[in-house]
Amino acid sequence: MTDSVTRPSERAANQMRDVKITRNYTCHAEGSVLVEFGNTKVICTASVDESVPRFLRGKNQGWVTAEYGMLPRSTGSRMNREAARGKQSGRTQEIQRLIGRSLRAAVDLEALGEHTIQIDCDVIQADGGTRTASITGACVALVDAIRWLQRERKIKGDPLKQMIASVSVGIYEGLPVLDLDYPEDSSAETDMNVVMTDQGGFIEVQGTAEGAPYSQDELLAMLELAKKGCQELFDIQQQALAE
Amino acid sequence: MTDSVTRPSERAANQMRDVKITRNYTCHAEGSVLVEFGNTKVICTASVDESVPRFLRGKNQGWVTAEYGMLPRSTGSRMNREAARGKQSGRTQEIQRLIGRSLRAAVDLEALGEHTIQIDCDVIQADGGTRTASITGACVALVDAIRWLQRERKIKGDPLKQMIASVSVGIYEGLPVLDLDYPEDSSAETDMNVVMTDQGGFIEVQGTAEGAPYSQDELLAMLELAKKGCQELFDIQQQALAE
Amino acid sequence: MTDSVTRPSERAANQMRDVKITRNYTCHAEGSVLVEFGNTKVICTASVDESVPRFLRGKNQGWVTAEYGMLPRSTGSRMNREAARGKQSGRTQEIQRLIGRSLRAAVDLEALGEHTIQIDCDVIQADGGTRTASITGACVALVDAIRWLQRERKIKGDPLKQMIASVSVGIYEGLPVLDLDYPEDSSAETDMNVVMTDQGGFIEVQGTAEGAPYSQDELLAMLELAKKGCQELFDIQQQALAE
Amino acid sequence: MTDSVTRPSERAANQMRDVKITRNYTCHAEGSVLVEFGNTKVICTASVDESVPRFLRGKNQGWVTAEYGMLPRSTGSRMNREAARGKQSGRTQEIQRLIGRSLRAAVDLEALGEHTIQIDCDVIQADGGTRTASITGACVALVDAIRWLQRERKIKGDPLKQMIASVSVGIYEGLPVLDLDYPEDSSAETDMNVVMTDQGGFIEVQGTAEGAPYSQDELLAMLELAKKGCQELFDIQQQALAE
Amino acid sequence: MTDSVTRPSERAANQMRDVKITRNYTCHAEGSVLVEFGNTKVICTASVDESVPRFLRGKNQGWVTAEYGMLPRSTGSRMNREAARGKQSGRTQEIQRLIGRSLRAAVDLEALGEHTIQIDCDVIQADGGTRTASITGACVALVDAIRWLQRERKIKGDPLKQMIASVSVGIYEGLPVLDLDYPEDSSAETDMNVVMTDQGGFIEVQGTAEGAPYSQDELLAMLELAKKGCQELFDIQQQALAE
Amino acid sequence: MTDSVTRPSERAANQMRDVKITRNYTCHAEGSVLVEFGNTKVICTASVDESVPRFLRGKNQGWVTAEYGMLPRSTGSRMNREAARGKQSGRTQEIQRLIGRSLRAAVDLEALGEHTIQIDCDVIQADGGTRTASITGACVALVDAIRWLQRERKIKGDPLKQMIASVSVGIYEGLPVLDLDYPEDSSAETDMNVVMTDQGGFIEVQGTAEGAPYSQDELLAMLELAKKGCQELFDIQQQALAE
Repeated sequence: MTDSVTRPSERAANQMRDVKITRNYTCHAEGSVLVEFGNTKVICTASVDESVPRFLRGKNQGWVTAEYGMLPRSTGSRMNREAARGKQSGRTQEIQRLIGRSLRAAVDLEALGEHTIQIDCDVIQADGGTRTASITGACVALVDAIRWLQRERKIKGDPLKQMIASVSVGIYEGLPVLDLDYPEDSSAETDMNVVMTDQGGFIEVQGTAEGAPYSQDELLAMLELAKKGCQELFDIQQQALAE
Repeated sequence: MTDSVTRPSERAANQMRDVKITRNYTCHAEGSVLVEFGNTKVICTASVDESVPRFLRGKNQGWVTAEYGMLPRSTGSRMNREAARGKQSGRTQEIQRLIGRSLRAAVDLEALGEHTIQIDCDVIQADGGTRTASITGACVALVDAIRWLQRERKIKGDPLKQMIASVSVGIYEGLPVLDLDYPEDSSAETDMNVVMTDQGGFIEVQGTAEGAPYSQDELLAMLELAKKGCQELFDIQQQALAE
Repeated sequence: MTDSVTRPSERAANQMRDVKITRNYTCHAEGSVLVEFGNTKVICTASVDESVPRFLRGKNQGWVTAEYGMLPRSTGSRMNREAARGKQSGRTQEIQRLIGRSLRAAVDLEALGEHTIQIDCDVIQADGGTRTASITGACVALVDAIRWLQRERKIKGDPLKQMIASVSVGIYEGLPVLDLDYPEDSSAETDMNVVMTDQGGFIEVQGTAEGAPYSQDELLAMLELAKKGCQELFDIQQQALAE
Repeated sequence: MTDSVTRPSERAANQMRDVKITRNYTCHAEGSVLVEFGNTKVICTASVDESVPRFLRGKNQGWVTAEYGMLPRSTGSRMNREAARGKQSGRTQEIQRLIGRSLRAAVDLEALGEHTIQIDCDVIQADGGTRTASITGACVALVDAIRWLQRERKIKGDPLKQMIASVSVGIYEGLPVLDLDYPEDSSAETDMNVVMTDQGGFIEVQGTAEGAPYSQDELLAMLELAKKGCQELFDIQQQALAE
Repeated sequence: MTDSVTRPSERAANQMRDVKITRNYTCHAEGSVLVEFGNTKVICTASVDESVPRFLRGKNQGWVTAEYGMLPRSTGSRMNREAARGKQSGRTQEIQRLIGRSLRAAVDLEALGEHTIQIDCDVIQADGGTRTASITGACVALVDAIRWLQRERKIKGDPLKQMIASVSVGIYEGLPVLDLDYPEDSSAETDMNVVMTDQGGFIEVQGTAEGAPYSQDELLAMLELAKKGCQELFDIQQQALAE
Repeated sequence: MTDSVTRPSERAANQMRDVKITRNYTCHAEGSVLVEFGNTKVICTASVDESVPRFLRGKNQGWVTAEYGMLPRSTGSRMNREAARGKQSGRTQEIQRLIGRSLRAAVDLEALGEHTIQIDCDVIQADGGTRTASITGACVALVDAIRWLQRERKIKGDPLKQMIASVSVGIYEGLPVLDLDYPEDSSAETDMNVVMTDQGGFIEVQGTAEGAPYSQDELLAMLELAKKGCQELFDIQQQALAE
C-alpha cells in the first residue's frame, strides 16, 4: 500500500524541506540565527551570561540552558500568549528541556568556564517541526556565542565538542517519511524526533505512536531517514558557519 | 546652548529614522506587518476572532484589543522571559493598554460587527520607540484584517474611521528632538509619546519628565515635532497599503 | 454650544471639588494622610525603610516607590479584591508607576541617603480622580516622612526639592472642565491627568481621547485649567503642613 | 503571683478597650461600618450581590461570605501588600474563613433568598484583635445590608436570626485578661478568640497555647471573660443600630 | 432524646475508632509513620534540615514546621490537585499551620539547635479526622527524627518536652461523641478539634458550631471525651515507640 | 570491558527488580493500585468522571488523562512541595503527559462513551523508574475503572484495546541494563523509557544520552531488554487482574 502513498507536501518520502540558516539575524545577541525549515521560521539567539546558576557555583564549569516560545499568531489559529496566561504550557516546558539537553551535548562544560549560554528559540511562523528546527538553528547560534567568547578572550580553549542537529520523522499512511510539515504531522500515525551528533551518535530519540503502535522495523526505517536528514542539516550548518 | 547640541544619532532634531513597513510578513494572520523604525523591529499581527468578549455580547459591536511582548534578547542585555516569570511587567501592561486604546480610535466598533480584532506586537529587535513603532505598524495590520473581513463578506460597510500613527519626541540636552533611539531615550530629560489621527487630532499625549520638569514652551515644541513625524508616518502607511 | 453646558456636578468649569488633607490619619506610618477630593477619599502613607532596592545598593542614594490599591467596595459596584485574584490589574500597575515617578520628582535622591520611602495609596471611597488625589496627598505624607528622618537625625540636609500636585482635566460635552468626578469622567470625551511642580513645571501630562480626538486648542485649554487647579492644591498642601 | 500582675495597657483584667461603631462610614456599600477597638480600626462593608455562588444555584437560599485584608502600613512595620505578592497569606485566609463562618450563623440563609452578602473587612490601623473587631463590626454592616434588602423589597421576611460578636481573651503572666491589645497579645501565653450569639451560645472557640499549655480552669476563666466582653459588645451594636 | 441516638458508625459515644501507628513506613525520611484512625490513613514524615529559616538565623534555636496535603482521590469524589491548580486552599493552609503550631509545643526549640524538622502529612485515604490523625502520627515521626539527631550526635540533650496527640469531638444529634468519621462529621452540629499534651494540658481547642450554637455544658462534655481519647492515643504512641 | 561490569544493584543485566501490584489499595477510587518496582512505590488511582473535557463535548467519545506527583519526602533529600511552590515542575508535566498519552493507547475512546478516566500517580517512595512503574500500575487501575463502568452498566462494550506496560533501560558503564534503580540511573550514560503494548508494538520510545551519544547497536540492545522486561510486566498485570 505504501507504494502508492503521496505525502500532502508532495515531497519524496526521504526529502527534507528547503532549509535556510541566516546568521546575525538580530543585532544584540552574541549569536543570532533565523532558521527556516520550509514555512517553519524560528529566531534562535544565544546570550552569554558571565555567571552560572547557583547549583554550579564554584565548580569551574559553565552551563547551557534554553527557553522556547511561540508568537501567538505564529500558528493557523491564534494561541493564547503564555506571558498573559501566567504560565508556560507542559508542551513548552517539554520542548525547552529537550533543546537545553541537546545543546549541552555539544559543549564541554568545563572548557566553557564559568559562563552560561542562554538559548532562546522563538517561533515566528509555525508549520511543523519547530523543536527540530530550533535545535538545529540554536546550535549555530551557540557556535557564534562561543566564537564571541574566544574573540573577547574570555575563554581559551574550544568548548565545542561536536555539532548537533535534529529532524522529525514519522509514519504517514504506513510510509516512513522525513521532516513532517504541519498537515503531515497532524495525520501521521507515529511521530519521532531524533537529535544526532555530526559523528553519527544519537543524543535523543523520542518516538510516539499517535494511533496504532509501531513495530521495530518501522522504528529502524525512521532512524535511517533521520540519519539522512541530519547529515544534510550538518552540511547546511557548515555552509552557514563558513560565510 | 541648544544650537550646538548634536544628537547621538547625528540626525537633525526634526529627522525621523528610516521607517519601513512590510506587509504579509508571516503567513497565518489576517494582517501581518514587520515595522522598522531604524533598528527597532516589531512584528505586528492582527487576528480576527469571530466572537466578542463577554462584556460586549449581544451589543451588536466589535472590539479591538492588543498584547505586547519583547523577545528576551531583543535588547542589549537579555531580559527575563515574561512567560517564564509567570507575569507581565507593569511596563508591558501599560504599553499594551496604550496600543489597544489607540487602535480602537481607528475603528467604528459598531460597523465592525461582532468580531474581535486581536493585535499582537512582538519586538524582535529594540532600539527605542517600540511602542510608537508598534502602534504605527499595527494600524496597517488592522487595515489588512478589515480588508480580509470585507473580502470574506463577513462585514458590509467599512469600519475604518481614520488611520493612527505614533511617534516619540523628547528634550535631549535642552533640544526638542523627534523619534528618539535608545541612547537618546536613556539620556533625555523628557520623553513624550504622541498618538495622532491622519486628520491631525490627538488620541494620546503622554509626556514624562525624567529629570527636570518641562515648560509649556517645550511641550509645544515637542508637539510640533510629533505632528511632523506622524505626517511622514501616514505617508509611509499609505505607500505600504497601496502595494 | 459650550456656553450652555452644565456639568453633572453643577460646578463651574474651572472649579475644583472641596479638597481636604488630614495629617497623622493613622498612627504607625512616618507620614500618614487622608486626602479628600470631594467624595474621593484616599489614605496615603509614607513608610521609611532603612535600606534601598538591590539595584541601588552602594550608590549612595535613596529611592521613592509607590503602591496603589482600592478597597473592594470603595466603588459603586464591588470590584474583586486583587489579593484574592492573585494579581494586580494593568490599571493598578499603571497608576502606582505614575505615583512613584511623580513623587521621585519631588526628592533629591542623593540627599535622601540610603533610605527608601515607600508610598501606599489606598482608596477607601472612589468618585473619580483617585490617582490625582493620591499624588497630591502622598506628597504631604512624603514631607512628613522626610521630617521624621530629619528629626531622628538619620539625614542631614533637606532632600525635598519641590512640592508636587496633580489634578485631572477633561472635555465634557465640548467644555474643558477641571477635576472630574466619576459621572463626569465616565462621559467625558477626553480625560487628562496633569502632574505639576510648585514652580510651574510639568512632570507628567497624560491626555487620552476616549471618543473623538482632541485638538491642540483643547489641549491648551485643559492645561490652563490644570495650572489653576494645581495652584489651589499647593496652597492646601501648605496649610496642612503648617498645622 | 497573679494578684500583682499589671497589664501593659493598665486596664483591669476584665476591662474592654473603648469600642466605637460608626455606621455609613463610606457611601457606596449597602452596609458600611468603621469599628474601633481602642487603636484597632477596621472598615467593614457588606455588599449585596443579586446572585449566589455556583454551588448554591437553584437551591432557593442565599450566602454570606467574607474577605479580610490589612493596609500595608496598618501595622508597626510595613507588611508586603498581598495583591503585589500575588497571594493571600495563610493567616489572612484563616481569618476570612472565620469571619464568613461566624456571620453565616447570624443569618437564615433560606430567608435571605438568592442573594449573596459579601463582607469585606479592611484593617486601616492594627493594635491586636483585628479579627474579633472585624466580626463585631461586620455584623452591624450585615444588618444594614439586610435592612437595605427589605427597604428595596427584594426580600420579605427577616433573615437575621441573632446578633454575633467576638472578643479575644488570654492568659497574660498567669492572669486571665479580656480584649488583648498588640503588646499584650505578643507576650500572652495563651490567646483565645471567642464568637458568641446574643442569646449566649458559642459559635466558635479557638484557644491556642503560645507557650505553656493551659489548664481547664484557665479555659473556664477565659470563657467567663469572653461572655462579659461579648455582652458589652452586643449593647454597643444595639446602640449603633438604634441611631 | 440523646439516650436513643445511635452514631452512624454504631460506636459508643465515647469510643475511638481503631488506631494504628506504623513506624518506618517509607525508607528515606528520618521519621516516617503511617497513622490510621479507622479508614483515615495519613503518611507522616519528619525530615531533618541542617539549617533554619532566615528569621531564626544566628539565634541558636531550631524550628519545626509542617505541610499537609491530600491525594486527589483520597476522598469519595476526586478533588483537584493543589499543585495543578497552583495554590493551596485556605483549608489546607489552616490545617498545616495547626499541625506546625501543635508540634512546636512538643519541642524545646533551643535544645534542638540550629536544625529544622519539616513535617509532611499526606492523606492517602480520608474518612474524617485527617488533621487530628496527622498531629498524632506526626508526633511519633518527630520523635524518630529527634532520635536520629541524637544517634548521629548532631544534638546532645533531649529536645522532646512532651508528647502531643489530637482528637476530634462533636455533637451529633444532641449527643457528644468522640472521634467523628466522615458521615458523622458531615452531619454534626458542632465539631471540635482538641490538641493535648500527655501531661493533660491543652495546646489547642477549636470548636465550631456548624448549625446551632453550643452551650458551655456541651463544650465541657466534649472536653471530657477529648481527654479520654487523647489518653488512649498517648498509650498507642508509646507502644509504637517501644517497638 | 562490559564483561566485567557489575551493576550497583548486583542484578544481572537483564534482570528486573521484584515487581508487585496490589489492587484495591485505597477504598474510594474506581481503580486503586499500589505498584512496587523494588523500592519504588506508587499509588495509582483511576477515577471515573461522567463528563468529558470541553474540547470533546458532543463528540460521542471519552477521555483518559493523568496527573503525577511525588510526596516531598519520597526521595533521599526532601523536595519542595509543588502545591506550596504554586506550580508543577517541567519534569512533572512531562511525566504526566507521557502517562496520559500511554494509557490512551490502551483504550478505544469511542467505546468509552462520554466518560473521563482521570489517572493519578502519586509516588510515596522513589528509587528510580517512577514513570515506568506509574504507567504499568495505572494500566491495572484503568482496567478496574473500566470494569466498574461495565458493572454499573454505564457502558456496554469493552473499551480496553490492549494492555500497556513500561520499563526503563540504559547503558551503565557500557553495559545495556534493564530496569535501572536510582543509583544506576544517576550514573548511566544513557537512559531510555519504553512503553509497549502486550502485542509487542511500541507506544513510546524515549532515549536520552546523558553523557556520550549512543550508537544504533546500543539502541537495539536496549530495545531487546525492554521487550523482555515488558513481557514480564504483562504477566504480573494479568496475575493481579486474575485475583
